[in-house]
Amino acid sequence: MLVVMKQGASHAQVEAVMSKIRSLGYEAVRIPGNRVAIGLLGSDRPPDADPLVGMGGVLRIVRISQPFRLASREWSPENTVVELETGATIGGPDVAVIAGPCAVESEEQIVETARAVRDAGAVLLRAGAFKPRTSPYSFQGLGERGLDLLSLARRETGLPIVTEAPSPETVPLVAEHADVIQVGARNMQNAALLQAVGRAGRPVLLKRGPAATLQELLLAAEYILLEGESRVILCERGLRNFDSHSRNLLDLTAIPSLKELTHLPVIADPSHGTGHRSKVAPMARAAVAAGADGVMLEVHPDPAAAASDGGQAITPSQLAELVPQLRDIAAAIGRGIVREIPVGSEAGHVA
Amino acid sequence: MLVVMKQGASHAQVEAVMSKIRSLGYEAVRIPGNRVAIGLLGSDRPPDADPLVGMGGVLRIVRISQPFRLASREWSPENTVVELETGATIGGPDVAVIAGPCAVESEEQIVETARAVRDAGAVLLRAGAFKPRTSPYSFQGLGERGLDLLSLARRETGLPIVTEAPSPETVPLVAEHADVIQVGARNMQNAALLQAVGRAGRPVLLKRGPAATLQELLLAAEYILLEGESRVILCERGLRNFDSHSRNLLDLTAIPSLKELTHLPVIADPSHGTGHRSKVAPMARAAVAAGADGVMLEVHPDPAAAASDGGQAITPSQLAELVPQLRDIAAAIGRGIVREIPVGSEAGHVA
Amino acid sequence: MLVVMKQGASHAQVEAVMSKIRSLGYEAVRIPGNRVAIGLLGSDRPPDADPLVGMGGVLRIVRISQPFRLASREWSPENTVVELETGATIGGPDVAVIAGPCAVESEEQIVETARAVRDAGAVLLRAGAFKPRTSPYSFQGLGERGLDLLSLARRETGLPIVTEAPSPETVPLVAEHADVIQVGARNMQNAALLQAVGRAGRPVLLKRGPAATLQELLLAAEYILLEGESRVILCERGLRNFDSHSRNLLDLTAIPSLKELTHLPVIADPSHGTGHRSKVAPMARAAVAAGADGVMLEVHPDPAAAASDGGQAITPSQLAELVPQLRDIAAAIGRGIVREIPVGSEAGHVA
Amino acid sequence: MLVVMKQGASHAQVEAVMSKIRSLGYEAVRIPGNRVAIGLLGSDRPPDADPLVGMGGVLRIVRISQPFRLASREWSPENTVVELETGATIGGPDVAVIAGPCAVESEEQIVETARAVRDAGAVLLRAGAFKPRTSPYSFQGLGERGLDLLSLARRETGLPIVTEAPSPETVPLVAEHADVIQVGARNMQNAALLQAVGRAGRPVLLKRGPAATLQELLLAAEYILLEGESRVILCERGLRNFDSHSRNLLDLTAIPSLKELTHLPVIADPSHGTGHRSKVAPMARAAVAAGADGVMLEVHPDPAAAASDGGQAITPSQLAELVPQLRDIAAAIGRGIVREIPVGSEAGHVA
Repeated sequence: MLVVMKQGASHAQVEAVMSKIRSLGYEAVRIPGNRVAIGLLGSDRPPDADPLVGMGGVLRIVRISQPFRLASREWSPENTVVELETGATIGGPDVAVIAGPCAVESEEQIVETARAVRDAGAVLLRAGAFKPRTSPYSFQGLGERGLDLLSLARRETGLPIVTEAPSPETVPLVAEHADVIQVGARNMQNAALLQAVGRAGRPVLLKRGPAATLQELLLAAEYILLEGESRVILCERGLRNFDSHSRNLLDLTAIPSLKELTHLPVIADPSHGTGHRSKVAPMARAAVAAGADGVMLEVHPDPAAAASDGGQAITPSQLAELVPQLRDIAAAIGRGIVREIPVGSEAGHVA
Repeated sequence: MLVVMKQGASHAQVEAVMSKIRSLGYEAVRIPGNRVAIGLLGSDRPPDADPLVGMGGVLRIVRISQPFRLASREWSPENTVVELETGATIGGPDVAVIAGPCAVESEEQIVETARAVRDAGAVLLRAGAFKPRTSPYSFQGLGERGLDLLSLARRETGLPIVTEAPSPETVPLVAEHADVIQVGARNMQNAALLQAVGRAGRPVLLKRGPAATLQELLLAAEYILLEGESRVILCERGLRNFDSHSRNLLDLTAIPSLKELTHLPVIADPSHGTGHRSKVAPMARAAVAAGADGVMLEVHPDPAAAASDGGQAITPSQLAELVPQLRDIAAAIGRGIVREIPVGSEAGHVA
Repeated sequence: MLVVMKQGASHAQVEAVMSKIRSLGYEAVRIPGNRVAIGLLGSDRPPDADPLVGMGGVLRIVRISQPFRLASREWSPENTVVELETGATIGGPDVAVIAGPCAVESEEQIVETARAVRDAGAVLLRAGAFKPRTSPYSFQGLGERGLDLLSLARRETGLPIVTEAPSPETVPLVAEHADVIQVGARNMQNAALLQAVGRAGRPVLLKRGPAATLQELLLAAEYILLEGESRVILCERGLRNFDSHSRNLLDLTAIPSLKELTHLPVIADPSHGTGHRSKVAPMARAAVAAGADGVMLEVHPDPAAAASDGGQAITPSQLAELVPQLRDIAAAIGRGIVREIPVGSEAGHVA
Repeated sequence: MLVVMKQGASHAQVEAVMSKIRSLGYEAVRIPGNRVAIGLLGSDRPPDADPLVGMGGVLRIVRISQPFRLASREWSPENTVVELETGATIGGPDVAVIAGPCAVESEEQIVETARAVRDAGAVLLRAGAFKPRTSPYSFQGLGERGLDLLSLARRETGLPIVTEAPSPETVPLVAEHADVIQVGARNMQNAALLQAVGRAGRPVLLKRGPAATLQELLLAAEYILLEGESRVILCERGLRNFDSHSRNLLDLTAIPSLKELTHLPVIADPSHGTGHRSKVAPMARAAVAAGADGVMLEVHPDPAAAASDGGQAITPSQLAELVPQLRDIAAAIGRGIVREIPVGSEAGHVA
């Protein structure tokens, strides 16, 4: 249960409510966010709202039926919209295209790809500088050098950047270079990392783990939200599959399910979700049709030469063919494709 | 390996090829279908084509890299198109809407629903007369009485019928009433049933089992194809799920995967695939966007009163809203929605 | 809910109870079995027992909390013990070893293997005459000829036979030759087959499907029990696996779980459950340690030459080494290994 | 491929080999461990051993067919045995019992439980001080205070301690108090944590993630081994389950599979693996029968009052009943139960 205070509630009123909550046998926790709100924790008994109703400064009592609270629709009936510096939004009425290579490999590769995906309609550049890998013998990314190249690509193209922070100690450095910090599927339940990104002052893109329930995903988001970062984007990227026809089993039903459960934006990653280039475009279309707020696509100018995951990367020209299809599909459900002026760019809307 | 004979190949030429195959240590099997073709079975050694190339009447040698043969793209590069009596097609350029209640419950219910789904744009009426159920205590369908009501609905509306045959002995009876015979997910590997429907002279709608690989699905189709029935429609209806947010885990990536592996039509069932009414429309849209040749939807005039699976049924008016969205999404990938003159109907195309 | 009548309850008393049940809005169903019992079906409302308590001839009212009824522990607190003609039991205090080849291949193979597994301690010979296979191109078994060879092996060795009936029409023939009829994992929800074996007058060995819940398995058993056959043996044989280290994922926890839920015997099949010869013995030992009432093992005199599943077959000498380990493990939990006089045999207990 | 040098190989010989490897286009990496060995990395081409065979100081060339190298049986045919300060071993001929509460809750609780599990036959005390939880609202453990209490319990009972480090920054603190550092299932692919524990100078207990393949588990172990810590104990604790009959799906076949693939010790955790108290003992017995080098059991003096996971904890008296059964089962496969003098204890072997 959450007690939401009125805008102008006084400090004394807030303290009185917290004191009353404690006297009822609960812990009273100030919840970060625009609204002054106080959560009741520390007991599994369903709390009784009666003693709190009508106290000075109390706006309303929100009962939360889900184990996640700040992430729930009950807490915020309106959709959370994440706005980038360029004005591009994720979670608003339109659908965002996020694209770029699996990993930063070189200046030429990242700048060329960034230009190509921007021209094709992407509003956020994805690329890994730190690459958590299953095998310690696989390419682990360029690290800090990769982050510098991402900043360079940002300056050259005006595209904001999303890139992964693989551990708490890398978060400050990643936050310097990235507009959005990604938490990878392997780290979805890495609480220390979730808390670190929740304090970094950047929106967070949180990928669903390969065997995580939606409740577990939303509880992972809750770790971030409780640190005060309200801009969390959820990403479906496929579940562990018993059938080798696709690398992972993309659970697109998670999109409408999440949209019912939470106010947070929901996107899909059909590149990791399928693992095969030929299936990326159909599943990107399907994700938009299912109601995704965005799609994240691996694009590489020369997939065969990619340092990682080349088999699932599409080419810039394939992306350029796909985006108009996504626009038509979005239109079928009353949405558009996000098209915004890149950071520091002279370019206007790309019609 | 398959040896395809020329159109005018003589009986003697065919016999000579079969004799040669046997002399090489394989079994020679005449494959049903339009083309005269002879399969080499009975050994796991990759056969050597040399002795067969150039024999009289031999058109070409088809090497099949998959364990399924007649179902493979290698066997038939062109798509199989299933044509119903009305002229409506499944597997052609356009997308077919199949709709109706989970089960036939009464004359009024089935005729009313049939009219509603026809008017909304469906070209095939689905409804169960025999209902295989997990529990022997659940409603098992009206049986033969249900088939009679389906025939009545067909006469009243002109809509062809797809309904399930749950066992070999019910196949002849179902074939009398149905335009398409359904094999349910529980029976996907019921070989006796697959063989019985393969001999019934009707197209077959084969649902993927809840833990079946695509290879297993295509090998199940192969059982039907080997009996001489080439009109097999594959249906993705969701896999066993560890997360209760959806009843099953709809594997939409199976659609582009199957389209690569096989020439058979592929449809999706978002009703069983999700199990929740609110998710049926998003996932139907997603299926079309992913390239499905059709969607099969549970529609009930009063879902709350349905004898089975009411929670996943949409209403006729929800279907009427959905079909135009499906049309727009199909258009985004260069397809239309199948709209044909119902059987015996005076009505023209429903614009 | 079930109403159990007293031993000497009169026909009129039974009719009165059934009439009362109908007047309460339920269907009244006579349940097969030793006890005269009447089940209440046809409504999801939890029935009210009050009007039935104290009626003439009523012994007690059994509330069943599970969707399966006859299969539940509530219906029968005592274990069901399946007794073979030899006196060997499955489901009693001791653990039964069932062994034999995947498929009957020849007279020599089956008789030789039967002798070897009998001498090693098996009390039931397993072998397939009808072999349902994923691919129509795989060896499908010798069919009726295989059944004749099984009968021959029975005469030669005194071992009773368990073999699969793949379809309703094969049940009468299989019942002539087999002591126990097997329903395979692919057919676990083939209701027509379950009903046919339930009327065949033979104990049934029902294998769990590769993605079936225990509740689904017990509801499948319920189809058999409702036909009047109370001797149903449940078999865990592994679930669909995402990891290739084992062919299936043997769910041994299902053994203690099933023993809590049902009174039926529970065995495990570590041969199909693992798919690798080297893992059969460890998992057979584990199954007995987990409380299985028996293990079913594929044994072939020459695994490399087996017509099917050779990779998971152990040799007779490996079986002979395993059985004493199983005996020691059974002893650790106060059980023995079933050792009974084979049918028509002069031999006494094999110490 | 790994080049193993002779014991007395000179620095110059090692340098010469590394130089040759680089000239062949590979990276040359000194592998930590007792043996001087050099790994060839950085290319997917299978390296050619010829130029290295016969170079000065080269003992032998080890070809590794698996993606994990140091963890593979090929690298070390002999089992790795982890020896605790008490002399108790994990991975040797005998089976180790590890037991204790889910979490440290109080001095009384942990000391009482430690005494009880020691007296019942445990040789390592498990208990969480840091408790990574799915929900941020769940009890997260006592943290540093919990570690102090564990050290106290160690002094009082002589039992060594295994406890979890949830993040890299907690590793040094945990290493001060723990004899073995645990990496939890949620963190199996947290590379920064794996590397941190690999440098902490303590044996590591690595739990398999709920959807991890054995290859992924062994590659996670490889991250630790590459840091120089060779004492890694692998723990099967159950996979994501679609059936609620058990909390997780304990994959006991992983035990014989891992024993084939790796030289590292393998234990099982039937408490998390099943989630139900009544199934812990059967599955602990099964794990030993399957060849586990140890079992890890949650034991709480008052399970109903436990702060976390009480439903899966057994009581000390249930443990005392179980250990003799485990001893008998171990004996059936020629093993014993590890019984060692606790740290600083006067007590001798507990017969």
